[in-house]
Amino acid sequence: MSAREKVTAAYRSIRAADRPEVWISLREEEDVLREADRIDDLVNEGERLPLAGVIVAVKDNIDVAGLQTTAGAPSYAYLPAADATAVSRLRTAGAIVIGKTNLDQFATGLVGVRSPYGAVRNSVDPSRISGGSSSGSAVAVALGLVDLALGTDTAGSGRVPAALNGIWGFKPTRGRVPATGVVPACRTLDCVTVFAREPRLGRHAVDVMAGPDGNDPLAGLRVAPASTRPIRRVLIPTVDEYADIAPGWGDAFQSVISDLQVQGVEVVERSIEPLLAAASLLYGGAFVAERYSAVGAHIAENQALIGTDLDKSVARIILDGANPTASALFDDMERLDRLRLRATELLADADADAILTPTTTWHPTIEQVRADPIAANSRMGRFTNYANLMDMASLAVPAGTVDGLPFGVMFTGPAFSDDQLAEVAGLIGAEHVDVALFGAHMSGGPLNYQITQLGASFRGSVRTSSTYRLYALDTDPPKPGLVHVGAGEPGYPIEGELWSMPADGLGRFLDSLPRPMALGKIRTDDGELITGFLVEPEALENSLDISSYGGWTNWQRAQATDTRQDAIPL
Amino acid sequence: MSAREKVTAAYRSIRAADRPEVWISLREEEDVLREADRIDDLVNEGERLPLAGVIVAVKDNIDVAGLQTTAGAPSYAYLPAADATAVSRLRTAGAIVIGKTNLDQFATGLVGVRSPYGAVRNSVDPSRISGGSSSGSAVAVALGLVDLALGTDTAGSGRVPAALNGIWGFKPTRGRVPATGVVPACRTLDCVTVFAREPRLGRHAVDVMAGPDGNDPLAGLRVAPASTRPIRRVLIPTVDEYADIAPGWGDAFQSVISDLQVQGVEVVERSIEPLLAAASLLYGGAFVAERYSAVGAHIAENQALIGTDLDKSVARIILDGANPTASALFDDMERLDRLRLRATELLADADADAILTPTTTWHPTIEQVRADPIAANSRMGRFTNYANLMDMASLAVPAGTVDGLPFGVMFTGPAFSDDQLAEVAGLIGAEHVDVALFGAHMSGGPLNYQITQLGASFRGSVRTSSTYRLYALDTDPPKPGLVHVGAGEPGYPIEGELWSMPADGLGRFLDSLPRPMALGKIRTDDGELITGFLVEPEALENSLDISSYGGWTNWQRAQATDTRQDAIPL
Repeated sequence: MSAREKVTAAYRSIRAADRPEVWISLREEEDVLREADRIDDLVNEGERLPLAGVIVAVKDNIDVAGLQTTAGAPSYAYLPAADATAVSRLRTAGAIVIGKTNLDQFATGLVGVRSPYGAVRNSVDPSRISGGSSSGSAVAVALGLVDLALGTDTAGSGRVPAALNGIWGFKPTRGRVPATGVVPACRTLDCVTVFAREPRLGRHAVDVMAGPDGNDPLAGLRVAPASTRPIRRVLIPTVDEYADIAPGWGDAFQSVISDLQVQGVEVVERSIEPLLAAASLLYGGAFVAERYSAVGAHIAENQALIGTDLDKSVARIILDGANPTASALFDDMERLDRLRLRATELLADADADAILTPTTTWHPTIEQVRADPIAANSRMGRFTNYANLMDMASLAVPAGTVDGLPFGVMFTGPAFSDDQLAEVAGLIGAEHVDVALFGAHMSGGPLNYQITQLGASFRGSVRTSSTYRLYALDTDPPKPGLVHVGAGEPGYPIEGELWSMPADGLGRFLDSLPRPMALGKIRTDDGELITGFLVEPEALENSLDISSYGGWTNWQRAQATDTRQDAIPL
Repeated sequence: MSAREKVTAAYRSIRAADRPEVWISLREEEDVLREADRIDDLVNEGERLPLAGVIVAVKDNIDVAGLQTTAGAPSYAYLPAADATAVSRLRTAGAIVIGKTNLDQFATGLVGVRSPYGAVRNSVDPSRISGGSSSGSAVAVALGLVDLALGTDTAGSGRVPAALNGIWGFKPTRGRVPATGVVPACRTLDCVTVFAREPRLGRHAVDVMAGPDGNDPLAGLRVAPASTRPIRRVLIPTVDEYADIAPGWGDAFQSVISDLQVQGVEVVERSIEPLLAAASLLYGGAFVAERYSAVGAHIAENQALIGTDLDKSVARIILDGANPTASALFDDMERLDRLRLRATELLADADADAILTPTTTWHPTIEQVRADPIAANSRMGRFTNYANLMDMASLAVPAGTVDGLPFGVMFTGPAFSDDQLAEVAGLIGAEHVDVALFGAHMSGGPLNYQITQLGASFRGSVRTSSTYRLYALDTDPPKPGLVHVGAGEPGYPIEGELWSMPADGLGRFLDSLPRPMALGKIRTDDGELITGFLVEPEALENSLDISSYGGWTNWQRAQATDTRQDAIPL
């Protein structure tokens, strides 16, 4: 599909969706088509553009040259001269930005209701909130209006709306993606985030945007640790720490846990009290003063606009940020440092690499939030508020539905664990397929790592019907050649192993499979047909018929002990 | 010398020195002798105590169990139940703490005058200040009353007094040594420091004290970068950035620079404006509020004691810390982050690994400071104030005297560059000796790294008198055997290289020299005797006489091109 076709389709979807509140500004289709043609030309000329024609929406607190940045407040609007670093890097990679999306004003909120541009309705149930603050971006992705959208996340704004709309929300390690050209909420905590319907594109976009830009100090001063280990074990909160979440969500969370355990991830239950205590510091103490540093002057100078242009809840929160003293902030910083140390020890003691929680706690209607704007909002951030204060990476993952509404979970790990979080998250809800193995890829075999790396897990043993022969091929290391015998020829039942692996993992495995091996269908002794290893006939030359051993493992064992020598050379 | 003898000698020195203002509390000699006997017993029983019998003084804002901690304020005194982590680790290694030293109250000052326990007089000129805030600790070391003393450093308190008393002051990377049991000045900036008369002991003490203790969050949360490169190039400020320092100090600084250049260190001059700007943030903005968080409540509740128990200057600075808002602090944090980024870029652009400056700017008399306590003090911190705000390691190094008073310089580098700073600092003023090389240790040779690692630098070529023979020994790789011929036997002049290396480096090199090599004296063609490589005669068996090549390099070249085959086998 060309970029032009993609743009045309996007605008058609936008018109059909009839969700005007998603957008604060939308570019003219004509202009975007011209840009798409340029991308198509470059691609046709052989230019490598990794995101060519990817349609992107940008939260309206992130600069896009030529479009106003409002941060959700018309009075605050300015016309930026340049793209934010994140936007510029996406565009350089061939992505096409079509507009700016609605948000909780000044990125202050988790509801998507706090905007003079209107409440952003949920993508599945319009009577319910979209979640915020990156409300428009999340709904644009969930409704398929764009491929990708940028959000920001200080207290959960890039994750809560992902959960409530059934999509992925990537909140990278603070500083990985520069925040240059982003209206700050809390400068030291803000992260540029990515929404996507499938993880590979989202992760790729983060990688494209990452790296120092010579401007954002947090990006320039970060030093990555020497190494980050893969996530083999996750910590979950105690049941009473999420007992009050929405009806059905507890069961859905348990089902995710079981799913992960089946995939070989260990799960350990511990109180996450230090993290919850840190979460309450974000608005409960002096840290809120950073919001005053960011946009407090604008609100203080425009108090007459509170209730119209400026959202009441947002204005109240930010103006309150003028009050704390610097000494109180140092006291809170010490509390936070001590909680961070305890959280580090909690993970170390549990030998866990990340924390798994529901992403948020409930999914209110727009009316429920309007009735009690502060309390309804603050309840939503229980599991998201701490990540940035604790300097952790976090990833919101769609995990099915409850009563027809999206449910989401979240992996949160140490700084620079972004890739590891994405790997483990890929195990949730991925379509798994069975594959039968008969040689070096089986448990304990020299090539077993190739499939476990791709998320495969052992399901049991399997046996073919009595219509196969097994050969030890003349390869190094020797590989098994499983061949279905011709009609009337004598065959054997051959023992193997049944593994389950993500469909995309199997596809990638097949992609890298060398000659003479092949994957096709194997008939089992109970008549089923399962994907499994076959071999090109040509490879049987110089091979050894080991069918009488009944399987690779038996033959290997015999080779090792040298007790049987009755294999039949061809 | 036994620990008992060391303790006895220390108390004798303390009595002879007659500097009562150095000490806030000094343990009874009897008690310390009993502790020394215990150390001696352990050593005699074969216990490995790396600091056995090292006599230590501790700044009186660091807890030592059984001795009051006053932080320089009698009204603040408390009796700690446990040693500070740093103290406990030194004691476990066999060190003996004999007392607590005077300081600028609440570690607020760089002068050593701000204490109701009296101004600490300089170790060399008692009319002048000792520098502070770790005044008593520095003077105790400089006068030889103790081997080692602990200080603290927030704005330069562990370095300025080192410079003014002609000793070493180690300010490790923040968090390397836990601050548990230290009265905070600015909790997020405070470092425990070490004073020593020679670097090896100081560095060793830092290593003994380093590592998380499960209590100090800054120690527990730090992640060391993957690697830190050795310091090959240092950045110095522009001349106008130190034009106003004390008379003669500019020349002394230039002489250190020349000394380093001779040792092979590159020196590049650049404005250090971002660092100087950061320095002025420490007291000029909201950061001072952290001092109020630390001890402000005590001063606020005891204002009647200001001028007697509580120092006027100190009280004023700390009480002013109650005023800034948290929002102003966030603004200053942003300024600081931007300055940090610029400082990082400054070093990167100059391809420099550390900054070299004078440690402080002048050395006033006690009367001068009393006449103008704030201005006299703030002038002293120009080059020290920024290190902790910028998260840098720093090391104050004695660099001779000017007009009979100590002069010191300082290396400041990125976090975790501590060891590299100590290596480069070791080049200053170290006694260097010449060594003549004739084989694989020469420039470009496979073993050259062994001497450059030890600080050796190339001085030129050298030629022996015509009374030597050179052999290629039957070793792998082949090594040269230089042998003086007997009387009347024909000899050759042999070409080699002259290197200069620190005497201790040569000692360590000799310590690790394998058979059959030896070091002795070589006679040069102009009759001098220089330390150089010799060989055990036994090794000449099976070796090749390559004397006619005139040197190792020529022979190697010939071997490579295979054009001469006239070497004479023995």
